This record gives sequence, C-alpha cells and structure tokens, in this order.
Amino acid sequence: MNGAESLVHTLLRSGVDTCFANPGTSEMHFVAALDRIPGMRCVLGLAEGVVTGAADGYARMAGKPACTLLHCGPGLANGLANLHNARRAHTAVVNIVGDQATYHRPLDAPLTAETEGWARGVSAWTRSAVSAATVGSDAALAVQEASAYPGQIATLILPADTAWTEGGVIAEPLAPLPPSLAAPHVVEQIARLVRRGEPTLLLLGNNALGAEALDLANRIAQATGAALMAQGSNARMARGRGRVPVERVPYVVDQAVAALAPYRHVVLVGATAPVAFFAYPGKPGYLHSPDAHIHVLARAEQDAADALRRLADALGAPQAAAPDPGPRPEAARGAPGPEAVAQTLAATMPDDAVIVDEAVSFGRGFFPGTRAAPPHDWLQITGGAIGCGMPLATGAAVGAPGRRVVALQADGSAMYTLQALWTQAREKLDVTTILLSNRKYAILLGELANVGANPGRTALDMMDLSNPTLEWTRLAEGMGVEAARAEDCETLADLIGQASKRRGPFLIELMI
Amino acid sequence: MNGAESLVHTLLRSGVDTCFANPGTSEMHFVAALDRIPGMRCVLGLAEGVVTGAADGYARMAGKPACTLLHCGPGLANGLANLHNARRAHTAVVNIVGDQATYHRPLDAPLTAETEGWARGVSAWTRSAVSAATVGSDAALAVQEASAYPGQIATLILPADTAWTEGGVIAEPLAPLPPSLAAPHVVEQIARLVRRGEPTLLLLGNNALGAEALDLANRIAQATGAALMAQGSNARMARGRGRVPVERVPYVVDQAVAALAPYRHVVLVGATAPVAFFAYPGKPGYLHSPDAHIHVLARAEQDAADALRRLADALGAPQAAAPDPGPRPEAARGAPGPEAVAQTLAATMPDDAVIVDEAVSFGRGFFPGTRAAPPHDWLQITGGAIGCGMPLATGAAVGAPGRRVVALQADGSAMYTLQALWTQAREKLDVTTILLSNRKYAILLGELANVGANPGRTALDMMDLSNPTLEWTRLAEGMGVEAARAEDCETLADLIGQASKRRGPFLIELMI
Repeated sequence: MNGAESLVHTLLRSGVDTCFANPGTSEMHFVAALDRIPGMRCVLGLAEGVVTGAADGYARMAGKPACTLLHCGPGLANGLANLHNARRAHTAVVNIVGDQATYHRPLDAPLTAETEGWARGVSAWTRSAVSAATVGSDAALAVQEASAYPGQIATLILPADTAWTEGGVIAEPLAPLPPSLAAPHVVEQIARLVRRGEPTLLLLGNNALGAEALDLANRIAQATGAALMAQGSNARMARGRGRVPVERVPYVVDQAVAALAPYRHVVLVGATAPVAFFAYPGKPGYLHSPDAHIHVLARAEQDAADALRRLADALGAPQAAAPDPGPRPEAARGAPGPEAVAQTLAATMPDDAVIVDEAVSFGRGFFPGTRAAPPHDWLQITGGAIGCGMPLATGAAVGAPGRRVVALQADGSAMYTLQALWTQAREKLDVTTILLSNRKYAILLGELANVGANPGRTALDMMDLSNPTLEWTRLAEGMGVEAARAEDCETLADLIGQASKRRGPFLIELMI
Repeated sequence: MNGAESLVHTLLRSGVDTCFANPGTSEMHFVAALDRIPGMRCVLGLAEGVVTGAADGYARMAGKPACTLLHCGPGLANGLANLHNARRAHTAVVNIVGDQATYHRPLDAPLTAETEGWARGVSAWTRSAVSAATVGSDAALAVQEASAYPGQIATLILPADTAWTEGGVIAEPLAPLPPSLAAPHVVEQIARLVRRGEPTLLLLGNNALGAEALDLANRIAQATGAALMAQGSNARMARGRGRVPVERVPYVVDQAVAALAPYRHVVLVGATAPVAFFAYPGKPGYLHSPDAHIHVLARAEQDAADALRRLADALGAPQAAAPDPGPRPEAARGAPGPEAVAQTLAATMPDDAVIVDEAVSFGRGFFPGTRAAPPHDWLQITGGAIGCGMPLATGAAVGAPGRRVVALQADGSAMYTLQALWTQAREKLDVTTILLSNRKYAILLGELANVGANPGRTALDMMDLSNPTLEWTRLAEGMGVEAARAEDCETLADLIGQASKRRGPFLIELMI
C-alpha cells in the first residue's frame, strides 16, 4: 500500500467520504488511489474557488468535513478566498494539497511555490507530510483538528513521493476533541446580569443559531426581557415558520450603531464583539454603544448552544413559543424590487429549503421578508470574500441531498466563480440560482458615495458591468445549466415553482 | 492632497499609466483619485486572476510595469496564481492592495486576512504603507523595485486610512536600478570554453530570446559549433522569418533527457539549470547529462543580452544570417491535428502577431510548425499555474496596441479565468482566441499513464470535461465576444483571416 492509498483509507475510516477536487500532476497517485478504493464521492470543480467554497457549503449542511484536493501552491492560492470565508464561518475543511516531491522541491521547478506559508493564513492546522509511512496518521490528525468544535481548517500538504512510495499505514480515527464549554461561574454571572433587567442584548453566533438553541435563547429573552440579535454574517441559521426570528446586526455602520444603541449590555453567545466591516473616516469601529459593556457567555470557539441551555436552566426560564410570523405571503406582482422579491421567495420556496445568500446589496431586504416562509436554513457569505455563493450552493446541495438549495446571487460576485454551474449540472444538483442581474457593482456605488466622492466616468466605469452585457442565460447554458429570464415577480414565482418540481439545477436571471 | 492622490500622481510620474483593477470598498479613495487625476488607463477585470495575468501580459509587451488594484487579502489571493506565473516570467508588476485601515485591522473585521504574508510568497518587495505622507515615496520605490532587471513583483499594501488622509506627498521617480552584468572574467572563461569545441549548449532565457540577442547567440554558435536551445517556459521569444529559430527544452522528461544528452557543457544564459517540471519515480530531476558541466554566463537576474554581446565580441564571431526556414506553409486541410493546426496558424497569422500559448498538451507541436510564419512574439505560461492564457492575451493586447494577439488556449485551463473574455470585449481588444476544445484535462490523462495506473471510472471522471459539454461559443457570447466553431482546418483558416481583418476580440472554438 502506498502513501496515497493509506491516506484515502484513513480519510474514509475517519468519516470523510466526499472529495471536492481539482487535481493536477502531483496528485495523480491520490487520484489513482481513489480509483482503487471505493467509497469516496469525488466532485470535480473547474476552478479551485469552486472546490473550496463547495467544501464549505457541504460541511455547513452535512455537519462533517469534506476534503478538498488541490494542486500545489497556486491551486491552493486560487482556493484561499473561499477558505477565508470558511475560516470565518468556523467550517470544518480538510485540504489535501499535492506538491513537489520532497527531494524535488529544492530544484525550484516552475510550479514550486509558497504552499505552506499560504496555507497557514487560513488553516488552524498545517502540516507537510514527510513520508509515506506517516501520511495515514497525518490524515487522521487532520480530520480530528478540522472537526474540533465549531470547525476549522486543516491543511495536509502531500509531496508527491509521500503519495507514491510504498509503506503506507492506515490510521485509526482519532476520538473527537472535546468541545470547549463555558465555565460554570460565567453562566452564573450572566444569569445574574440578565436578571437585573437592564437593557441587554444576547448577540448570537455559530450553533446558537440552530433551531433548538434559538428556542433556548427565546426562553431566556421571554423570562428576562433581554433582546436577541444575530451577528451580521452567519454560517447557518434556522429560520421560517416555527423558528424564533432574530434580526442581524446591519451591514451599514449608521444602521448598526442605531440598532445596538439601546443596549447597556451586549452578551456574546458564540459571537464576537460587533465591528464595522470596514473603517470609515469619522465613524466608529466598534458598533455597540460606547457606554455598553461587552460580556462573554461563550466565545466563538465555545459551544454556544450548551451555554444557552445552561443559562436557561440557571434562570429557570419556562418554555416559550416562537412568535407567530403571520400568514405566509402570496407571491408579489410586477416589478422585482427587494421587498417584492423577498415576498415572492417566501411564497414559493419549497419546504425545508437551503437558502444561500450572496445577494450583497440588493438582498439586504430578503431576510426580514422571509420570516413567514416554510422552515429553511439560511447560509451567508461570512468573510466578505465575494465569489462564495455559487460554490456554497453547490456544496450545500451535495451535503443536504433531498433538499432544494435556492441561491440568491448577485451578478458581480457570481462572476468570480461562475464555473460552479458546471459542477451543478454534472452532479445534477438541486440548486435554483436566482441571479440578481443589475449589471453593476451596486455595493461599490454605495461605498463610493460614502467616501463623499461625486463619481466621474473612470469611477463609474469601474463599477459598471453593462458594457458588454453579461448574458447569464447563455453563460449558464454554456455550462449545461438550463436557464430562463424573469423581469417581473409573476415570472419569477412561476420559474421558482417549475425549478422546484424538477431535479437538477436551474438558473433564473432576474432583471432588477 | 490625500494619500491616494499622491499615489496616483507618483505612479504616473514614474511611468505607470495602466491599472488593471478589481476594486472593493477599501479602494474607493484610490478609485476616486483615479477619477480626479487624468492619465491612468483603468482596465476592469471581473476576477483577480484576470487582473494579475493581464498585468503580466501587458508588461511582457510594453516593457514597463502596469499596476494592479486588488481588494484586501482575498482579492490578492485570487490573483496569486497568475502572480506566481509573472514571478517565474520575471515580469515587472506593481500591485496596489487595499486593506483595512491601520487602526481597524486589530478589530479583526470579517475581511481581515493574511495580506502581507500572502504577498511575500510572490513579491520581491512588499510593504504596508503606514501613513498618507509616505505613500508617494512608497509608490516610487515600488516602481523602481518592480522595474529592476529583468523585472519582479512589488506589492504595496494600502490601508484605507493611508489613502483617505490628507497630507499626501508626490514623490519624484527614482532612477532605474542598474542591471546586474556578467563579470568580465566570466565572459572570458566562457569564451575559452566554447572555443574548445566540445559538445556545448547555450541554454537561453529572459532577454537572450529577443531578436537581437538571438542574432548574437547565432553568431557565437556559427563561430564555435555550440548549440542553442531555449528554456522550456519563456516569457517572450522573438520568432518567425528572419529570426534565429531555437527549440525549447521539452516538457516530457524522457524527451528532455534525450535532447540534452549530447552536451558535455551547458552554459546558462539568463536561464536556470534545466529541471523536470515534476518528479517521477525513477526519473531524474536535473535533465542534463550526469556527465555534463553546468556553467553560468548570466544568471536569470543578469542581463543575458549584454553577456551575449560581450561573448560574441570576445570570440570575434562574425555576422551570421538566420537560417532560411523555407517557404511559408499553406493552410492545412481537413482534420485539425496538432501539426495541421500549426501549419494553418503559420499560414494565416497576421504580421507581427503576438502569440499567447497556453495550449499545454495539444500545443506542443505548434512551436516547430510555426518557424516559417511571419515575424511574431511567442508568450508562454511560465510557472505552470494554469489559467494564465486568456488574461495574458488580454494584457498583451493592451500593452501592444496595433498588433493582433492570437491566443492558443486549452479548454481546461481556459475555464479558470474565462472572465477575461468580458474584459476583451469591453476594451475592444484585438485578440483572436483559438480555443482548443478536447473536453478533457488531456495532460492529466498522460500523467496518469505515467504513474502506471490503469485508470478506472473515478479517475477518468476527474479528467473529463464532456459531462456536461462546455459550449464555448455560448460562454463567449455571454460575455460579449463573438464566436464561431471550426471542425476542420479550412474553417479555422477562414475564421483566423476574418478575425484579423476586424477590430476587437473573436473566439474560435476548434473541435480537436
């Protein structure tokens, strides 16, 4: 058994059975091993941003890591932006990065690059394998590290000779690392705090946003008068009828400051202190009131759901029903403005849908407008590295078979990783992409206004995607995905319904 | 004047008047400054691999650096693979990477990433600006460093507050750094060596591949019996009628070993010792004969053309005409095999064309078959990070106005950076892309055979791009580039001719 075979066997035994891949020459022994050893589902991506973003989406839904297969330093580099997003989402990912043979690396062949250094910027755990005999144990450790709650990135660099040399040893799975829990005295302190009845916000992140954890948070809120809010960007959030609705910290600084101004206490529950996405001249970096105190019930690395359970118990908070969101809306008619699209989405999304949201500027209104939709999960871009949505949707569909993924996708961001459509077609994934075609970098026009500039031709040109026009139906069809255009909400509703009834991907170019 | 304005003014004074850009929020003050200060041509790319690859192609043709404008660590990361290629090409590039404000960075906002660390892997010079007052002098230094012969990558990270704060100071251009020359005694030693008449190869790279330098190399070869060969991957090479033809070190190890076996002496002239692209079990890493001696006339960082001139003088080598390549071929007929395509290309390429070659496996035969074509420049992928060709072609067209760029482009590689087509359409660039559609990662099928594997379904699937079919005419039209399909050499010849007569881009999907 060679190193590559021991690696594949070990990954499978450790529960990693899905590989998002864009292999190259140095990975051929790993590919050959995948061929000989049954059990690993291999999903090809035609660019590495698709591969890493899909691994993120998969793990967010499957609750366990996939592995990626990437080709040398540049292949990893192409995938770094979506690994950055995965890191911010606390997603478990195991990267396998092929590289030059150990003894060939000093020859500085053309593809030799800064593989390990680049990996460290996103990885909690990075190792270069040194021999075929130890690749198996490296892999078991990589899975254990990636799976450490709430999830992190582990990168195993695989020099070609450690893959092809005989003497591989399959490693047994390592026991999961125990999650880090809130200390008992911290739970007691926070219980005392929220009992005081001062204006207090529980800021929720990570697994505090699952359906059961939201119920616990709601019990605490009802018992104490504390308010609930979610972080601005979240990996996955349970939403829709029967779930406790929480708003998010707004993206726009002034709105965020206003939303947080009422609170004298902000309690972090699997979240970090709310900060502005970017600095702006004369605006604050921290978004909470300057008079407010920040308290930590559970750090982002601690089990927030467990902390909520113990806090609810400490408070003796009784059961509390989720508020009634009112009737499910009817689909809107006419022009597709943000509220009308949200309403149409709420009216037409299938039960138990997975919503992937990279709608950036236009989509800020989608969230409140979908409270009364059927139960669904809502996945966001977490690290601000755009080009995340279509790969996330791809991976989410692999990780949640039987559930339809609806991707709310801005056009500018979509262009970074449009290759994901090909993978969706190849794997016949149940993804409906609503491509929001405004033919501009709308968010940047807003940001340019924020800097006080009166934009001229040069600046406007750099935010304009209309010259030439991006024809999304052709782009989708060029990669094997059926597509149609909608210019009003009636057509949008009709197409969402049609797409939900069939298998496989569909793209709706929504002219906004 | 704010820091951003001082930066734009300084770049312009230093001769950098072209900016390939994919800006984000943290770059808005730079964008606003571009608006207010005339003189900078801004070329938008819809993904950062397009931006950095285009900067590479531009500088290879223009002989001076462009700047890039990239958005934070993830934006840089998306461009790293083509910066890796640019580094291997010894191309001058000035990266401007916007980033979090200096005082906002410690807050670890979602987009905060390992910007500086990632930059160092490709950059000879990296600096994070610390104040508006010093951004101008930073920029002048960045241009000087990037322009150091033969060219390198300089990355200036621009925290948003150093851009927006008043107090910017325009810096005067810095004098070019003097090139590093071969020492006189080295030229004498090599002169003595080549006079001995033992089997000797001059291995040429960098500016030893310009038309005049090739003439000098030919004089030396004719006077001494030394042979000439180029490195396997080269940034730019003067070719066609009237130019001295040299073959390249073959990619395939066995072929390379055979090609280099005859030589007891290998003299590096702006080149590095020839090594295998990858290691293979039981095959050598260094490609020259184990008995051969490696000599250095000019290291890759030294002025190789100057060294050739002095060597020719030292030898008293008389003028020597370039060999007659024979008559220009007629276009081939029938099926488009590699030789037939090369012949058709030689027959139809316009005068003074710029050939960009990312044809990878299928295109290995294109090089010898185009010797008798009109004079042209040949640009290659230099670092093995695929996805280089279409961006290179885009930038080359900007950097060499009036010359038609013909891109020989494999389909698998093309999918990494197909967004370049949109920029070609937007800027009406004279690029003819010959998209070699074989619907597979052909090079990997060869490599898989090399590892001795008998590929099964899993492995074959990971090299197959035919399910679903990539429809390149639709993909091109979706981004505003006219396209047509050719299935035989007659149609190919006709389409190349038509494309050359018009302005703007055209894509030919050649079914191979």
